[in-house]
Amino acid sequence: MYGLIGKILAVAGARDELAAILIGGVGGMPGCLSYVVALDPADPDALWVTEVWTDGDAHRASLSLPSVRDAIARGRPLIAGFGERFETRPLGGHGLGDAA
Amino acid sequence: MYGLIGKILAVAGARDELAAILIGGVGGMPGCLSYVVALDPADPDALWVTEVWTDGDAHRASLSLPSVRDAIARGRPLIAGFGERFETRPLGGHGLGDAA
Repeated sequence: MYGLIGKILAVAGARDELAAILIGGVGGMPGCLSYVVALDPADPDALWVTEVWTDGDAHRASLSLPSVRDAIARGRPLIAGFGERFETRPLGGHGLGDAA
Repeated sequence: MYGLIGKILAVAGARDELAAILIGGVGGMPGCLSYVVALDPADPDALWVTEVWTDGDAHRASLSLPSVRDAIARGRPLIAGFGERFETRPLGGHGLGDAA
């Protein structure tokens, strides 16, 4: 499996709107086992996104999906920058959903 | 929801054993929506654990479960330390499992 943990910094006041766009864009992505959008309680402009994919190819392919391209286009103006970013190799656990 | 993202540093050579203990200990934890154990490809001794709970109380209560106490007891000698740790407030997404 292939995983990403990343922090996205929204422009001031736009975090909730950006989160809604991200959550709305992630249905039915082939090979996506988990994609969770979270607020950072320590930074009013920051979101954490944690992702688990069957493999890195599935993640890369997702960036070409119409729903994801649309979410990126709508979300980009709301993004001020990026914070920490970690790639991972998920092994297992609980809550890994179906790979659509 | 309540979330945690944390890095655990295993003693040299013990990462796989520690990961197996963590994965084996997380079945049926009430209020646990996601608990994923991953290798850090950049550090041969590091694991990432990402967790989503219904709330912080469910996370705290899990630490008293016999299965979790047993996993902690077996895993502790294999832990050399801890790295980054971030609390989060998950909003939604894909792959949030049943809260047993």
